[in-house]
Amino acid sequence: MRPSGRSPSQLRAVRLTRGFTQYAEGSVLVEFGHTRVLCTASVESRVPPWLRNSGRGWVTAEYGMLPRATNTRTDREASRGKQQGRTIEIQRLIGRSLRAIVDLEALGERRIVVDCDVLQADGGTRTAAITGSYVALADAVGTLLRAGRIRRNPLHGQVAAVSVGIHAGTPVLDLDYAEDAEAETDMNVVMNDAGHFIEVQGTAEGHAFRREELNTLLDLASDGIETLIKLQREALEQAL
Amino acid sequence: MRPSGRSPSQLRAVRLTRGFTQYAEGSVLVEFGHTRVLCTASVESRVPPWLRNSGRGWVTAEYGMLPRATNTRTDREASRGKQQGRTIEIQRLIGRSLRAIVDLEALGERRIVVDCDVLQADGGTRTAAITGSYVALADAVGTLLRAGRIRRNPLHGQVAAVSVGIHAGTPVLDLDYAEDAEAETDMNVVMNDAGHFIEVQGTAEGHAFRREELNTLLDLASDGIETLIKLQREALEQAL
Amino acid sequence: MRPSGRSPSQLRAVRLTRGFTQYAEGSVLVEFGHTRVLCTASVESRVPPWLRNSGRGWVTAEYGMLPRATNTRTDREASRGKQQGRTIEIQRLIGRSLRAIVDLEALGERRIVVDCDVLQADGGTRTAAITGSYVALADAVGTLLRAGRIRRNPLHGQVAAVSVGIHAGTPVLDLDYAEDAEAETDMNVVMNDAGHFIEVQGTAEGHAFRREELNTLLDLASDGIETLIKLQREALEQAL
Amino acid sequence: MRPSGRSPSQLRAVRLTRGFTQYAEGSVLVEFGHTRVLCTASVESRVPPWLRNSGRGWVTAEYGMLPRATNTRTDREASRGKQQGRTIEIQRLIGRSLRAIVDLEALGERRIVVDCDVLQADGGTRTAAITGSYVALADAVGTLLRAGRIRRNPLHGQVAAVSVGIHAGTPVLDLDYAEDAEAETDMNVVMNDAGHFIEVQGTAEGHAFRREELNTLLDLASDGIETLIKLQREALEQAL
Amino acid sequence: MRPSGRSPSQLRAVRLTRGFTQYAEGSVLVEFGHTRVLCTASVESRVPPWLRNSGRGWVTAEYGMLPRATNTRTDREASRGKQQGRTIEIQRLIGRSLRAIVDLEALGERRIVVDCDVLQADGGTRTAAITGSYVALADAVGTLLRAGRIRRNPLHGQVAAVSVGIHAGTPVLDLDYAEDAEAETDMNVVMNDAGHFIEVQGTAEGHAFRREELNTLLDLASDGIETLIKLQREALEQAL
Amino acid sequence: MRPSGRSPSQLRAVRLTRGFTQYAEGSVLVEFGHTRVLCTASVESRVPPWLRNSGRGWVTAEYGMLPRATNTRTDREASRGKQQGRTIEIQRLIGRSLRAIVDLEALGERRIVVDCDVLQADGGTRTAAITGSYVALADAVGTLLRAGRIRRNPLHGQVAAVSVGIHAGTPVLDLDYAEDAEAETDMNVVMNDAGHFIEVQGTAEGHAFRREELNTLLDLASDGIETLIKLQREALEQAL
Repeated sequence: MRPSGRSPSQLRAVRLTRGFTQYAEGSVLVEFGHTRVLCTASVESRVPPWLRNSGRGWVTAEYGMLPRATNTRTDREASRGKQQGRTIEIQRLIGRSLRAIVDLEALGERRIVVDCDVLQADGGTRTAAITGSYVALADAVGTLLRAGRIRRNPLHGQVAAVSVGIHAGTPVLDLDYAEDAEAETDMNVVMNDAGHFIEVQGTAEGHAFRREELNTLLDLASDGIETLIKLQREALEQAL
Repeated sequence: MRPSGRSPSQLRAVRLTRGFTQYAEGSVLVEFGHTRVLCTASVESRVPPWLRNSGRGWVTAEYGMLPRATNTRTDREASRGKQQGRTIEIQRLIGRSLRAIVDLEALGERRIVVDCDVLQADGGTRTAAITGSYVALADAVGTLLRAGRIRRNPLHGQVAAVSVGIHAGTPVLDLDYAEDAEAETDMNVVMNDAGHFIEVQGTAEGHAFRREELNTLLDLASDGIETLIKLQREALEQAL
Repeated sequence: MRPSGRSPSQLRAVRLTRGFTQYAEGSVLVEFGHTRVLCTASVESRVPPWLRNSGRGWVTAEYGMLPRATNTRTDREASRGKQQGRTIEIQRLIGRSLRAIVDLEALGERRIVVDCDVLQADGGTRTAAITGSYVALADAVGTLLRAGRIRRNPLHGQVAAVSVGIHAGTPVLDLDYAEDAEAETDMNVVMNDAGHFIEVQGTAEGHAFRREELNTLLDLASDGIETLIKLQREALEQAL
Repeated sequence: MRPSGRSPSQLRAVRLTRGFTQYAEGSVLVEFGHTRVLCTASVESRVPPWLRNSGRGWVTAEYGMLPRATNTRTDREASRGKQQGRTIEIQRLIGRSLRAIVDLEALGERRIVVDCDVLQADGGTRTAAITGSYVALADAVGTLLRAGRIRRNPLHGQVAAVSVGIHAGTPVLDLDYAEDAEAETDMNVVMNDAGHFIEVQGTAEGHAFRREELNTLLDLASDGIETLIKLQREALEQAL
Repeated sequence: MRPSGRSPSQLRAVRLTRGFTQYAEGSVLVEFGHTRVLCTASVESRVPPWLRNSGRGWVTAEYGMLPRATNTRTDREASRGKQQGRTIEIQRLIGRSLRAIVDLEALGERRIVVDCDVLQADGGTRTAAITGSYVALADAVGTLLRAGRIRRNPLHGQVAAVSVGIHAGTPVLDLDYAEDAEAETDMNVVMNDAGHFIEVQGTAEGHAFRREELNTLLDLASDGIETLIKLQREALEQAL
Repeated sequence: MRPSGRSPSQLRAVRLTRGFTQYAEGSVLVEFGHTRVLCTASVESRVPPWLRNSGRGWVTAEYGMLPRATNTRTDREASRGKQQGRTIEIQRLIGRSLRAIVDLEALGERRIVVDCDVLQADGGTRTAAITGSYVALADAVGTLLRAGRIRRNPLHGQVAAVSVGIHAGTPVLDLDYAEDAEAETDMNVVMNDAGHFIEVQGTAEGHAFRREELNTLLDLASDGIETLIKLQREALEQAL
């Protein structure tokens, strides 16, 4: 039995609230149980130096956590003057995951920055961030398309992510903080809507994991992501 | 007529939502119209070095703005590695304002950090932050009192704040961004529940202001803050 | 009776020494009693990025304190790699105050940087800095006018500043460090030569202050600044 | 055919040179073809703050690249004042990988820092670094054991790593830079001597990868690592 | 003929003004012609970590230049967040030079920090700083001796410094900025009152210099420093 | 007798290995006994801002030390976010020394950066670095000449360096760490192949040194550098 009472293959309640704030071209509050992340997609006309005059665009992500998103307060990175290694790792992962489903040529010479700010953290913030960011990105792209600023949709797929892990000997889907803190193996899986892998990051926390365990975890993740892909589609089908 | 259709002495719709996030000892979402600031109060057992073994506590504040809280995206301070001058100025103001109503001896040797994070900015974020922070602070102190960790209430008053300014020749209360951007004079006023001043910061943006103008602005602010003090009290009287 | 033996409305001995150093376009040592600040105004041909090709200029200020300007040594900001919050607050205040009397269009596309470096600090360094900076700025502008680099005087007024506060229950003008350290209320007032306000920053240090107290403080400040404006004029009338 | 003429499952020439420098408790130059990384293990008596008086030790890693280890010079991180995101990601990975085979209690309250400095980079620097670091760590632990400073061996396994990827449609082992730059999928695999996984990090560079591709890549990696584990053992069996 | 009309072996007018500011234990304004450096010596009770409980003290120096000490304004190091290489080099030189004449054991477990701030720069600021710092240090030590905080004088000599160089083919003493900017060889010499060398730093700016030239420069420096040592003694013999 | 058994005027075994790494235009491992420094010269097409469109080039140097190059580990500068004062001093010295033998006009508008990274430190790393850097620079220039990118050789001389010092009362050449740590006087001398001085930096560590001692040290250095110049020439005469 999991601490939350969920079955091993059960996701937490997932909610995607579009238009959570009003200025960004895409703004989505994503919730996986108590984990709440605000994802905003901002369209900018300048691109990084190495893309100038290339005709191609860029998609990047930044990640942050409000100081008291967690059980005990963590120092504000802006006042420490430095982002933590964990933060940098996560925002690079989100950026790569999003770019995997974007045709940067079709986007044209502009940059979309997706900011993922964790309002409340109960495990799985990076995978929730990826899942929510896709919806924010789709809304931003929709704005560009409707305004005629781009002609064809640069998104050639959907992307979503979930964490899986081995907790108390059992492979489980979508770990909350209580499980994550004592998991033996922790894996973040990012997939597209064709069921293929974009990123797989598995880490043995306690003992090294066997090939069969890896396989079971990937099965759990595939099923979970299939559900998330559906929830993204449903959210995007609603009127804003 | 003001851009928003409000009368010169009319506040925007003000909402104080307690318990907006679950981990902090006090967590309040404060809204002044479209301006939304999340204020969390965190109780910590360590004090700054200069207070160790003094028997006295400390209250401080930090301020941040999500990159896309504003109409165009602003760089993330954590990734620039530096807080802006404006940010530093604001968080120092919030900290001083809160300490003005706290008996640091009664608080005992502990620190309360109030984090004010702007989710959406439509003018007046610093005064909204002060107004909301008081409620978050009161909730954090309530937690300490109920747990018997402190004996007497260290809060000896309430504190709230509002902006006033001269817009299109008319003194007005609680400026939104549209007004603020073209105000000739801009003033932030912080007062306690006895109607006395804790902080007054007035700046001539266009022409220098006269003594009579200053007086009118202070009258407007006093009335506005009286209302805010009432709203704080009502919010705190409700069960969490 | 004040610690210094002065009457409540009495300024300290104020001295403005022009041409204190030889390279700057304007260089003024300002002394308010033992407080000594060197203000230099430097004319530069480049403007900040947001003003390029606008035809308009910029005036800005930087503030610093020599490590042993104070009673006990404070760390050198350059070696700590960071300016303190207080420093940033002060230099922003000086810059805003100066810009309030400058027609940036008449200045043309150039930048004047006023550096205020405190050689000795005995209270009131920021208001002394503003008062001295005006004279340095006027000298720099004079250089431009005499050289025919600008046609009309971009200064449309004078600006001076003084601190007022409530010390031992009595409202007093121009606090020295001994008074400032135990003041209940501390206010910095910046005015122009028409007797109008450019900036008012009042802070309750001990108890919150009443409207009548605020009024008395503003009266004291107005009288003090009138004298300072006269002293600036006299200093500028002398040959360099 | 691979650019290097190797077969898909062929490692580059791997060399492990112990005692490459003389001061460190363990010092190994690891070469995978033209990739050359110097790994030194330093034993220190202090532990990070959170482990003080816990009786447990710590193993951590730092990674750096000489500015001209690469084809075009990259800025020196020390003079830019900041480590790149990639650097931070890699050194965290090395540290986790090493800790996975260390009994931190048996190590006692001391810290071993493994520095991995890339002298020449031709792809696969992070996996070479892990493979070489294990040997440096084993030498450092050997020093402690021989000196009687610890009683039982804190290493409960070996750890080695290799990269695999899909290049020109073919899954290949141990990519050099020419292959890595155009790989469609890139995966770093870390395993122990029991053939279990410590870390799996797979990234789709071009198209998302299928489950079968993932399986083939893991097979290639398992075989490669088995060889590396043998090479480590042989290197350690020689007299220093 | 030198630009200033001085003979090759002639110093500029040198002035040492003790008690230039009032708080520091030693405060000296040193002037070499138009070069003006304020040197303050501050006594602190804490020592650097590596000297705790050693019974020995420390003497160190910091150097800074006001932004407009020079002909064109240089950026403020505090706002750039970094000291320049030149600054670091100079303050290390001043510190070493002073420590060469201090018995750190006799000083006891305390630290003296000498701050050298250049108010106006016309060449030779580092050697002027060393010459003035000695006098400030002597005053600070005098304060400790008179207060009975140390028993015997920790200064076992005097130290002074001067620059020499080859200008327009002629070896000259004490270069001002006009000479320094076009010197072929530039040398800073630090000596004690016994006429021995503490530091010699010679740099070929144009062509490499010959042994005979070096010898002539050292002769010039020795004579110049002998004069400076006398001026220091005279300054210290006067009542403060 | 010296700790190493060398005679006072005896250099350590000096080795210059060209082509130590493969990407840099010049790459030399220089060894002075156990001191090992990797010097790479990289040719870049951009010059510093102040040289743009001047037709002149630039040569600069950076210096670093691997964390465990020394007997006890020193913190990695990249992770501390700051280069030490010592590092900055050394890299400035190397850069000046190299520029002394380069005709920057003949180099044309390009920059050569010489990176000196200490793999193992046993005293004299900065002088070894200068000696090795010359060879790396010569190789880089050779590449440019052979490729026809420059027409005439911008190197108008050779440069080499050695340390001398007074150890146990005896002037000695080329100090190793054991000697350096207890030397009374320490001097770094940089000369060209005409036997003239480019840089002389002498520091009294214990007692101040006399003119005769200085002379003996310079004699030792001249002889040592003559040998180093020969070794450089021999190394460069071999085929790469």
